[in-house]
Amino acid sequence: MNANVGSDARPRTGDSLEARLLRRLLRVLGDPPIEFRLLWSGEKVAPASTEPLEHLRIKDRRTLFGLLYDAQIRFGDAFADGQIEVDGDLVKCMVALFKIFAPDAREPISSRIAGWCRPPSRNTLTGSRENIHQHYDLGNEFYALWLGESMAYTCAYYPSAASTLEDAQTAKMDHVCRKLRLGAADSVVEAGCGWGSLALHMAARYGAKVRAFNISREQLEFARRRAREQGLEHRVEFVEDDYRNISGSYDAFASVGMLEHVGREHYPALGRVIRGALTRNGRALIHSIGRNQPGSLHPWIERRIFPGAYAPSLGEMMQIFEPSGLSVLDVENLRLHYAQTLRHWLERYDANTAQVRAMFDERFVRMWRLYLAGSIAAFDTGTLQLFQVLVTPYDNHDLPLTREYMYPR
Amino acid sequence: MNANVGSDARPRTGDSLEARLLRRLLRVLGDPPIEFRLLWSGEKVAPASTEPLEHLRIKDRRTLFGLLYDAQIRFGDAFADGQIEVDGDLVKCMVALFKIFAPDAREPISSRIAGWCRPPSRNTLTGSRENIHQHYDLGNEFYALWLGESMAYTCAYYPSAASTLEDAQTAKMDHVCRKLRLGAADSVVEAGCGWGSLALHMAARYGAKVRAFNISREQLEFARRRAREQGLEHRVEFVEDDYRNISGSYDAFASVGMLEHVGREHYPALGRVIRGALTRNGRALIHSIGRNQPGSLHPWIERRIFPGAYAPSLGEMMQIFEPSGLSVLDVENLRLHYAQTLRHWLERYDANTAQVRAMFDERFVRMWRLYLAGSIAAFDTGTLQLFQVLVTPYDNHDLPLTREYMYPR
Repeated sequence: MNANVGSDARPRTGDSLEARLLRRLLRVLGDPPIEFRLLWSGEKVAPASTEPLEHLRIKDRRTLFGLLYDAQIRFGDAFADGQIEVDGDLVKCMVALFKIFAPDAREPISSRIAGWCRPPSRNTLTGSRENIHQHYDLGNEFYALWLGESMAYTCAYYPSAASTLEDAQTAKMDHVCRKLRLGAADSVVEAGCGWGSLALHMAARYGAKVRAFNISREQLEFARRRAREQGLEHRVEFVEDDYRNISGSYDAFASVGMLEHVGREHYPALGRVIRGALTRNGRALIHSIGRNQPGSLHPWIERRIFPGAYAPSLGEMMQIFEPSGLSVLDVENLRLHYAQTLRHWLERYDANTAQVRAMFDERFVRMWRLYLAGSIAAFDTGTLQLFQVLVTPYDNHDLPLTREYMYPR
Repeated sequence: MNANVGSDARPRTGDSLEARLLRRLLRVLGDPPIEFRLLWSGEKVAPASTEPLEHLRIKDRRTLFGLLYDAQIRFGDAFADGQIEVDGDLVKCMVALFKIFAPDAREPISSRIAGWCRPPSRNTLTGSRENIHQHYDLGNEFYALWLGESMAYTCAYYPSAASTLEDAQTAKMDHVCRKLRLGAADSVVEAGCGWGSLALHMAARYGAKVRAFNISREQLEFARRRAREQGLEHRVEFVEDDYRNISGSYDAFASVGMLEHVGREHYPALGRVIRGALTRNGRALIHSIGRNQPGSLHPWIERRIFPGAYAPSLGEMMQIFEPSGLSVLDVENLRLHYAQTLRHWLERYDANTAQVRAMFDERFVRMWRLYLAGSIAAFDTGTLQLFQVLVTPYDNHDLPLTREYMYPR
């Protein structure tokens, strides 16, 4: 709990102008089960039709007016600054807020609340480097605090709900390698390799020869050190370059968690890169956050956490594959796995906030806490999806009949 | 072999005007490995760069000019009429012809060959009845000759390449039921139920209660008789009505091989029907012929065999689900299974041509033989795909973590 925000033991039901304005707005939004407390006046604004699950305290008038003006951006900023405080479970509160944005809602929220928007961050060759630097070069030590040993900043795969994060990250890599039917003689190119976990796993466990591309220098240095430590430099080459500069011909193409940063306008070009990189019998797997319907990421996330990021619908993803004659073999939706991955991350993050505060500041601690909790809510409510799509050149006829090979016993 | 077409033991390489025209056209089309014999002149036109695999005999000048004018329609018609004859394997010949139309081809064939087209057959409530009647009401005895006991006119699922057609059709129904996680207390609605095989299987093996819709009267009469014979009338209701008139709320929605007849303009409406028919935790499975890229069915097939039919790309299929807030859980491409199913059908069809000839005529026999052989080629070459798509309302959170449940051992 933040010391900036005092508590109010016995709030009275508000009838000030602000309280009435907030009440009317909440009713329009379907009365989320959240009680708001206005700390400057000691008032409360509770839902009319439901019992409040969580309490949300707002520190001052300026914050409230900011929310009324542009809730999408201001909520995250005010939370980060300690001007909004949640009593109780942050994830549950975020779930309640996300339900306002559900596809069932009668009218898009965006058309009801005024907002402003800076131009979208362009994923040009230079723009991508800036966008990626802003998020992924926060320091390997920071990510190591909560990603765990596997250093994989993407959705894990939980063979059972009781799996640990480490086991689930290893299971994810095996799930990907199995889908790609990776064999010992295979060559692989990876687009967006993070800290190199998958590339090293493919080389160490499957005997594959891997070229892994990334434009985040900090991640690559870490990855190269790991390759040396594991004696895998001869099998894994880490290349500091954009996926658009991939050359050569490979048995498999893997991209886990990069598509979010590619930008829709570059999807057909990505398809050409994939098609060009594959042998006729090659396989490619794209693993990405997605949506049930086209739509932007939450604007606060796009602005403060992931500049230039976009989560496509499956229909939009097809713009990668269809123009290049790639054939979709398999799609799997793993959204529940991402909710579980994020729960594990948040748990570790919360256990290490003192260290995060020492690296950055209290505002950063709160901002990232909100991002992780909000992401759990997004995957739990079905606001976001996680798609793994397996494709192959249209004229690859060397295909297994069934998917049993993905589920060995 | 058709008696209309004489054979020519020692054809000479043609230098007549027709032969030179044909040779030039074939070169533009990438020199398919087929040798053409012009029976009226005794000439042959062989590929320049490859060894011919199959021989194609053309009876008269009129047929050749018809092909040059509108190959897509005229080829099928001329084959049906015995004006074109294939020496050797019809499927291999079709494969060679299909490769001309591959996505890699430098320029769409349609822009090179003149053609004409009647307006697309509309799938309105009345139009659909006419279109469906033309294909599915050819007589249950006709279909029984080559579909086998299971009377399922859709892609089977081959657990192994050695499976029989009957086993593979049963395996397909179980694969669908497993994907839908069908339980004993579940209610199901089926859109486009054919001769009722899946509906009866769901009731008999899974204890489900099924309402199955179809607009083909002949199929429904057959299905109702089977239900009586199997003592399943109390669990399976066969309804003669359009899928657009489905009412009620169900645990599962299944549609196997109907989407091809729905028409793209009706996809969002189909999505609303699915969403409206499902309980919050309901599951829906759509099984349909598809393509890697948007495009029409082969015009001869659309004109002579399947009026009003269309095979969508996966991106186009998303227009069913995305507008209605349905979440895609799983997509599986079964194109190799359809090639195998069709091989089994063609084998039985060829063994029963005398009976087909007695029911219809020689032209019909040849027309359907070409359709079956051409379809094998289409699925074998990757010109057509078979997609099974599993969806659920976006706010169904009662989902299994992994797909292991689809592969019990």
